[in-house]
Amino acid sequence: MSFSPLIRQLIDAFRILPGVGQKTAQRMALQLLERDRSGGQRLAQALSQAMDGIGYCRSCRSLSEEEICHLCSDLRRDESLLCIVQGPMDVYAVEQTGYRGRYFVLKGHLSPLDGLGPETIGIPELLGRINQGAFREIILATNPTVEGEATAHYIAQILADQELLISRLAHGMPLGGELEMVDGGTLSHALAGRRPIQV
Amino acid sequence: MSFSPLIRQLIDAFRILPGVGQKTAQRMALQLLERDRSGGQRLAQALSQAMDGIGYCRSCRSLSEEEICHLCSDLRRDESLLCIVQGPMDVYAVEQTGYRGRYFVLKGHLSPLDGLGPETIGIPELLGRINQGAFREIILATNPTVEGEATAHYIAQILADQELLISRLAHGMPLGGELEMVDGGTLSHALAGRRPIQV
Ligand SMILES: [Zn+2]
Ligand SMILES: [Zn+2]
Repeated sequence: MSFSPLIRQLIDAFRILPGVGQKTAQRMALQLLERDRSGGQRLAQALSQAMDGIGYCRSCRSLSEEEICHLCSDLRRDESLLCIVQGPMDVYAVEQTGYRGRYFVLKGHLSPLDGLGPETIGIPELLGRINQGAFREIILATNPTVEGEATAHYIAQILADQELLISRLAHGMPLGGELEMVDGGTLSHALAGRRPIQV
Repeated sequence: MSFSPLIRQLIDAFRILPGVGQKTAQRMALQLLERDRSGGQRLAQALSQAMDGIGYCRSCRSLSEEEICHLCSDLRRDESLLCIVQGPMDVYAVEQTGYRGRYFVLKGHLSPLDGLGPETIGIPELLGRINQGAFREIILATNPTVEGEATAHYIAQILADQELLISRLAHGMPLGGELEMVDGGTLSHALAGRRPIQV
């Protein structure tokens, strides 16, 4: 290995990023060192501030540096709709469709074999949130995968005795796909065509 | 835009990396925040240390945190060979072939139209380095592009009156390609088949 210790350390550190292998990490490290040191310093500071400063919104459980995130504290949003997603990236994807109701962010999906039960993914907090609100409809926007469908079905069951319309994103999304990878038009159609769920 | 200010700042900062667009930057930011905060902190620190601490080796002009890099200070290397490359990444590529002579790293290639003349790319420092050494052969390992060939030809000309064998990497490398993208086997053949240059 012919890189100096500090360069090796930087290349190794870049490899924690999704989709970044050895060769890409080398290009990233050397390109910053050769062409954009101030950009590299800005990235270092942005990383440090984000890793330290960002927690979870007490209301929707999405990532936020405020106790209540800017979406939850926006009073102009529709209080009758709650959209449940599997992760913070999905909030961004749904927001792009023009949806302006409320959100709740689960910590992933149910997966009993991996020890991911209702408590782990935040179902108690979800029930607390629903009881605090005055929702008319709960939109289950978990991924259209086996686990996402199972999670949606589980939530629909535990909410069945409440006076709530429970809906699911319309199919039209590719089966086995991930919400955050779907283009905005497809997701808009899926959201517009959401249907009541049967339990 | 539905991300909080600190997350937006992190996504923007990731976009300075080569090959990273908006969607990739989002995935990087959220994946670190959700799954690997300590990795994110390590990356922040590695970046900060590298951007601050890495300069250029006084001897070969490659990136190094020491005044003389670990390759130049290694006494076991062949003092009769000097390999001239266009950038630090190329040192790594040539080193992978098993070459164990000395290096000199230019700052890119000559490009008069862009104002990149001999002084800008480090030709005076190269001549100083050659005069300090006791080289028998100078290997011109600039890229096999029009600009790389022109740079090699220019250096061959100014060294023509010295008692030096001037060689060029054998063709066999893809024309128009970049040294750092070539696989090790091709580069090994090109290095082994290097030929005297005609001026
Ligand atoms: Zn919130
Ligand atoms: Zn050196």
